This record gives sequence, C-alpha cells and structure tokens, in this order.
Amino acid sequence: MNVVIVGLGNIGGSFAKSIRHSFKDYNIYAIDINVDTLREAEKLDIINKGYTDFKEIIPEADLVIFSVYPMTLKNMVESYAPYFKPNAILTDVTGVKESIIAEIEPLLHSKIDFVFGHPMAGRESRGLGFSSRDIFQNANYIITPTKKNKHENIMFLENFVKKLGFGNVSKVTPEFHDEVIGFTSQLAHVIAVSLINSDDIERNSKRYTGDSYRDLTRITNINEKLWPELFLMNKNHLLRHITLFKDEIERMEDAIRTNDIQKMERMMVESKRRYHDLHDLEYNPED
Amino acid sequence: MNVVIVGLGNIGGSFAKSIRHSFKDYNIYAIDINVDTLREAEKLDIINKGYTDFKEIIPEADLVIFSVYPMTLKNMVESYAPYFKPNAILTDVTGVKESIIAEIEPLLHSKIDFVFGHPMAGRESRGLGFSSRDIFQNANYIITPTKKNKHENIMFLENFVKKLGFGNVSKVTPEFHDEVIGFTSQLAHVIAVSLINSDDIERNSKRYTGDSYRDLTRITNINEKLWPELFLMNKNHLLRHITLFKDEIERMEDAIRTNDIQKMERMMVESKRRYHDLHDLEYNPED
Repeated sequence: MNVVIVGLGNIGGSFAKSIRHSFKDYNIYAIDINVDTLREAEKLDIINKGYTDFKEIIPEADLVIFSVYPMTLKNMVESYAPYFKPNAILTDVTGVKESIIAEIEPLLHSKIDFVFGHPMAGRESRGLGFSSRDIFQNANYIITPTKKNKHENIMFLENFVKKLGFGNVSKVTPEFHDEVIGFTSQLAHVIAVSLINSDDIERNSKRYTGDSYRDLTRITNINEKLWPELFLMNKNHLLRHITLFKDEIERMEDAIRTNDIQKMERMMVESKRRYHDLHDLEYNPED
Repeated sequence: MNVVIVGLGNIGGSFAKSIRHSFKDYNIYAIDINVDTLREAEKLDIINKGYTDFKEIIPEADLVIFSVYPMTLKNMVESYAPYFKPNAILTDVTGVKESIIAEIEPLLHSKIDFVFGHPMAGRESRGLGFSSRDIFQNANYIITPTKKNKHENIMFLENFVKKLGFGNVSKVTPEFHDEVIGFTSQLAHVIAVSLINSDDIERNSKRYTGDSYRDLTRITNINEKLWPELFLMNKNHLLRHITLFKDEIERMEDAIRTNDIQKMERMMVESKRRYHDLHDLEYNPED
C-alpha cells in the first residue's frame, strides 16, 4: 500500500506519524513545497521519501491524503487528475465540504474515488514540528459520502482512521457537516477572536486571568490565511449560528440588566445539562 | 498559628490541603454546615478539627479564610464579629470586591484586619472531593488593599499565598479588580453559557466537536447559585464588557457578510499578537 500525504504541516505530519505507527507495512510518501520539511520527515523516518514534484509519486499512490488549504485543493486536484492511478482513493481534511465537493468531483475520472473527510483535531501551532499522533487519539472524524463514492472505499477510510486512533467516525451529508461545523468549530473561532480582541483594559490583563480566559482564547493563535477562507466557504451556516449565539448573549444581558436571577439560573441549569450531555455524564441537578 | 477555613468546598478544601503541605506547624481548623465533610477532612488529615458552631473556634483564630458564597459572607462576618480575636487577619476568595468591601468593613472592630483577596483558580466540579493543591500552582492571585489594611498584614497574605504555590500576586484597587474580572472571568462565563445554549442542531453535536468547542464550553458546568450573584454584584462592568464583545462579534460578522478577507485577516493577526502577549511568547508574524 502506497500512501501519499500532500502537505506536511501539522495535520499531514500527524497523519505520517500515525500511519507509521499503526500500519508498519505501508509505504508513506509526502509531497510538499518545502524541501527542508521533507528532509526532516525522512530523517524522522515518518515518511519513506519526500517529493516536491508530484508527478514522480502520484502515479504510484493507492491512497492520497490532501492536507492543504481549501483554496489550494481544487487547483491541485485539477493538476494531479491525469496522473492518478486507476482505483486510487483520495481523501482530504478540509473543514468545509459542500462547495469543495461540488468543485472537485467533476474534475475526476470515474475510476478515481475521492472520499471526503474531516479529522476534528488540530493544534494552535503550525507545522511538522508540532505534529503528533496524540492529537488524533479519540478525536472525532467526519466522512461525507457522496453518490459517486464506492461503499468499500468509504468503509476503507472509516477503518483506516479508526486504526489511527480516531474515536467516533460519523458519516453525514456534506450539508449537515457544514451546518454542524459552522457551529462547533467556526463559531468557536469567531467567538475566541472576538473575545481576546475586545480586551480594552490594556493594563496587563494576563496577570488577572484564570483558566476560563485561557481556555476560551486558546484558539486565538489562529491561522489568518486559512480561517477567512473557511468562514466564507460556509458563510450562510456560520452567519446563522452567529445570530443564534448573539440572541443567547442578549438573553443573558437582559437578565443581568433587569436583575432577573431566576432567568439566569434557568440558563445555567440548561447549560449544565448540555455540558453533561456533551461529556456523556449523568446529570444530577443536586450536584 | 491557628488558621480557620470557613466553607470546605472546592476552594476551601484546596486551601486546607495546600496549607497542610506548605506550613507543617500551622493548626488548621474548618467550619462547615456539613458534618460529613468535616469528618472526611479530619480523616484525610487536612484539618486538625472541624466545627459546625463557629463560636467554638473563631475566638482562637489568627487567620480566617472565608471560602463561601458572596451573599453569605456579609451575614457571616456580622455574626462572627464579636468573637474575632484581637489582631486576627481575615481574608476571602470572593470574585467581586467593591460592593462586598463596602458592606463588610463597617462591621469590623478596628483591631480586626480584613485583607480581601481573590485566587484565580477553580474547578468546574464542586466540593471537597474535587479540591486539590494543584489548582493553586502558578495561578494568579489578586489582593485588593483598602485604607484600613495594615501594611504588614497585606504582606503576610501575599507571602502566605506565594508559599501555597500561587504565581503572580497582584495588588490592585477593588474597582480595578472588578473591572478586569468582569472581563477575564465573568464575560468568559457569559460567553460559554451562551455558546452551549445556542446549539439548535440537536442531532448529537457531540459527535462533531473538536477541542475548540470543548475548551470554550468547559466552564458551562456552572454553579447557578453563585454566578448570577456575581454578575449582579458587578453589573456595570460586566454589561460594558458584553457590549464591547458584541461590537467585536459584529465587526467579524460584517466582514463575513461582505466577504472582506483583509478585514478578517487583520482581526486574526491582532488576536495572534494578543495570544502571544497573554502567554509571554515572542510574536513572529511569519510563524
């Protein structure tokens, strides 16, 4: 089995390390524009060989994992298209699906199967140096099957990522993926950036922070070349989630303004119930 | 040295464990309404003895740490006032200062010194069972000296909490404390509760979450008897911070709506700069 990872950043590097660990007999190759990164990965023995010219290795690939920016992905697949091996399986890690799939599927020969996926794992620091098998352990994975995908290839990807350590692997429509990710991921990033940017105290707030603030702002070391793209590709869902979130903020704001303790308590009891559900804990209102 | 901890919950229990560890020769006593908690703490040997009747031990106390709800604190100090030992030092852990101090200082005899403090440490789970020395290690501590405090007692509290493991100990005015905590702590709780409550997907969102969502909602297992009190005691600062946060959210919302990638990028570069400052990291825009 020849696996080619395109883009050896944080996620691509974590794939290389995980595959090396879980599939001893696979050959792992990588394509990247950065030669130093490729040499480093070869030295770490997490890839067999690295390439800057995709034509040298793509024709050998049984599985291609595109771990690149969404805007890059389409052009890349377009250039690679004539070189894919018949019956190759392609997959990606992109955080938005519907528009990407609509652009990419028409580019592909019917013998090539692109099974789109999204590992719900990442780090606030970029690059191969911060990649790690650990970030995949028990993380969620989403596969968004389309009518073109062969059942056996969807199953292959599902079993493959489970073996890498992912926990729940969900199969949902691209539309649903974008709706839910607009909430759990993109809205979270909008909020974190807005929170840290709304600090007008400028008197060394960091001396006065607890874990809450550090947790809520952990993702603010954000990749400014990636996230605006993702936001715009999922504009409608994201704008709807922002509106619903603002409605909730305003309910709380009203309760504070009108000294409505009962209303605040009800909102907090509801948030506790949801916290317990999120973490599969039993909720006992007396706790 | 006789230390009395009033309220053996998560924070009170963590004080008991930390003091036992750092000050081997101190006698540690506790007052709680829950007899089982007191017996448990005695069995763990983190207190020498527990009391349900404060009159039995408060007259012996050199240092009293009130680790109770803000609304309870005033009534408690009022009842305890005739029993404090001359030259006793009192302190608290309350998350809002200005109004509490205004209520409490007039209740006290001039020989009793209440040095108000706020450990920026906590757990999402309540009670002695979840208390731990660990939560204090390198956490921030805020002391809000008033004109009535003796300099040596302020210094005593500062050295005492440093020895327990706290990192930065800041001395600021009660007004500034409330302003900054309204931002770093209370606004964070308003946001987290609003985020989890704005989930309208109801199709098992937890299968589709990554670390971002879990981090942003960690504090939603919130104590609904405590936080509405804190919000109202700090109403003006908190409402101002909510307004500024909503302004930032709306700037981002506008940028998304108008496809303004440059504006989003600028906001994210700013958030990265602030992230680095918060974590004392050098910011290199090329990273």
